Amino acid sequence: MSSSSEFLCEGLLEGDRRSAARLLTMVEDGDPAAREVMRRLYRHTGRAHVVGLTGSPGSGKSTLACALAGNIRAQGLSVGIICVDPSSPFTGGALLGDRVRMQELAGDPGVFIRSMGSRGALGGLSVAINDAINILDAFGSDYILVETVGAGQVEIEVVKYAHTCVVVMMPGGGDEIQAIKAGILEIGDIFVVNKSDRQGAERTMSDIEMMIEMTPAPDAGSWRPPVLLTAALESRGIEELAAALEAHKEHLEASGRLASKVEERMKAELLEILSMRVSSAAIRMLEDSDAGRDLARRMTAREIAPHDAADEVIRRLRC
Amino acid sequence: MSSSSEFLCEGLLEGDRRSAARLLTMVEDGDPAAREVMRRLYRHTGRAHVVGLTGSPGSGKSTLACALAGNIRAQGLSVGIICVDPSSPFTGGALLGDRVRMQELAGDPGVFIRSMGSRGALGGLSVAINDAINILDAFGSDYILVETVGAGQVEIEVVKYAHTCVVVMMPGGGDEIQAIKAGILEIGDIFVVNKSDRQGAERTMSDIEMMIEMTPAPDAGSWRPPVLLTAALESRGIEELAAALEAHKEHLEASGRLASKVEERMKAELLEILSMRVSSAAIRMLEDSDAGRDLARRMTAREIAPHDAADEVIRRLRC
Repeated sequence: MSSSSEFLCEGLLEGDRRSAARLLTMVEDGDPAAREVMRRLYRHTGRAHVVGLTGSPGSGKSTLACALAGNIRAQGLSVGIICVDPSSPFTGGALLGDRVRMQELAGDPGVFIRSMGSRGALGGLSVAINDAINILDAFGSDYILVETVGAGQVEIEVVKYAHTCVVVMMPGGGDEIQAIKAGILEIGDIFVVNKSDRQGAERTMSDIEMMIEMTPAPDAGSWRPPVLLTAALESRGIEELAAALEAHKEHLEASGRLASKVEERMKAELLEILSMRVSSAAIRMLEDSDAGRDLARRMTAREIAPHDAADEVIRRLRC
Repeated sequence: MSSSSEFLCEGLLEGDRRSAARLLTMVEDGDPAAREVMRRLYRHTGRAHVVGLTGSPGSGKSTLACALAGNIRAQGLSVGIICVDPSSPFTGGALLGDRVRMQELAGDPGVFIRSMGSRGALGGLSVAINDAINILDAFGSDYILVETVGAGQVEIEVVKYAHTCVVVMMPGGGDEIQAIKAGILEIGDIFVVNKSDRQGAERTMSDIEMMIEMTPAPDAGSWRPPVLLTAALESRGIEELAAALEAHKEHLEASGRLASKVEERMKAELLEILSMRVSSAAIRMLEDSDAGRDLARRMTAREIAPHDAADEVIRRLRC
């Protein structure tokens, strides 16, 4: 292990914020040196409770994350926030209220906030998010909140593998029902109707409750997702949300579901890494080898279909 | 080739709608029999002009797609529409006006509309969309409109590889500026401020124009994305949009950019297929082999980090 990697790794484990920030930048940039550090960190992970927050833009996920982080801190626990939502105030364009709240949080040594670009290399984003979760876990965060926008496949995949997935909605709006149709219902462990001071909040709550009731529970002892009302800007309903998180955490531990969730997340993480590695190797092969360039030419001439070209690449690939 | 695959393939090439619908279902379901058909179809593809339509939910992409399809039909050309946006009226929850418009379109033999689920297997969605484009291409569509929501990585990837990418925005709203920040600016060949009867349309248009002007053009003869105002519900600005599409198409052909776009799309398609195949093989290996189960156990015990487990899987993989 190179001395600089060792230095960063030790720094992180001792709770040095600059080391954490540097490592997060390395994984975000896809720096190959990060792999060495990730390997060494890995045995120090597995302690944090990872909470995914998803929902459409404008549902107030960031404000909710801030309020929740405040509650977690008041319990004497530390919290990391990873934000992957391009429409989030964490990543820019914060409203004044949020900005003040975030500055308060950012000055607290028990809070670590990081926003990540939602672009990046093919498949690279999921890998970077998972690496970031592992970094903040090894850094010692008790809770890690991952905020993503609920529209994309990658984001849903990431949130799905959190220990607890919180789906944030707004009162009214056909969008919310659309979101439920789009598969959000199955991934939510806790549903929150935020901005509950607006008209129609109770109605939206009962709509979601009805849809949950219509979904058959997998088995008798299984978790029934609660639907909560919050008004994050006024800090209303946050204690109830924190209590629901705690209840879900206890349920996972008591039911043995935690172990299978952890295994699912690891498999997903492994598959993301595989996809990224295979893609990089395939790009190199297509661009830098005669065989690859010839394959690209034959595809363009429509002499070979992409599915068949994939067979050829697999035969030649050295990842 | 099995006789049923041959039957479907012939049907599609003869313009039989039921064959097209059946094939689309097969690729959506990830039916292995589809590969055989796709292989045979491939040399009949490459004629359609593929237009990606992206933008945030509520920007009116579907209404615009309908209006644009009407214009294309009036030119005597055929059009296929693939919709991957869960919030789109094509996939459910249509407003009355849209529904009427869509029914008119759906009854037209020169129009083929298909919505696709935005869930599905890991990496499977992009592969299915690309297959669907190839099917409608072989089916004989002159234009293929692909509507996706602009928030997710997968959707952006797909739209990016269309021949022409149209980014649809709404007047006002910080969301739009956020979207631009999130990388939408770089992928748009044409920008549309839809719902231009609303306040602030000109302002949004000039904001986008300014951002485009600030972006240095790659070279002297390169394409400058136009920014258009439309009100799709009232069919306003649609002719201008159709003209811009035609102009971009001509630019791609005249500048030689078309060939490189086609090659980029094929490479992207190949990489998606590779990722999907490698993921499936890795899942089988992890779940159905002793070595795989042992690897999963060692990951869960944090004896091996996911990046290192990926090395082991690659060594053992048979795709």
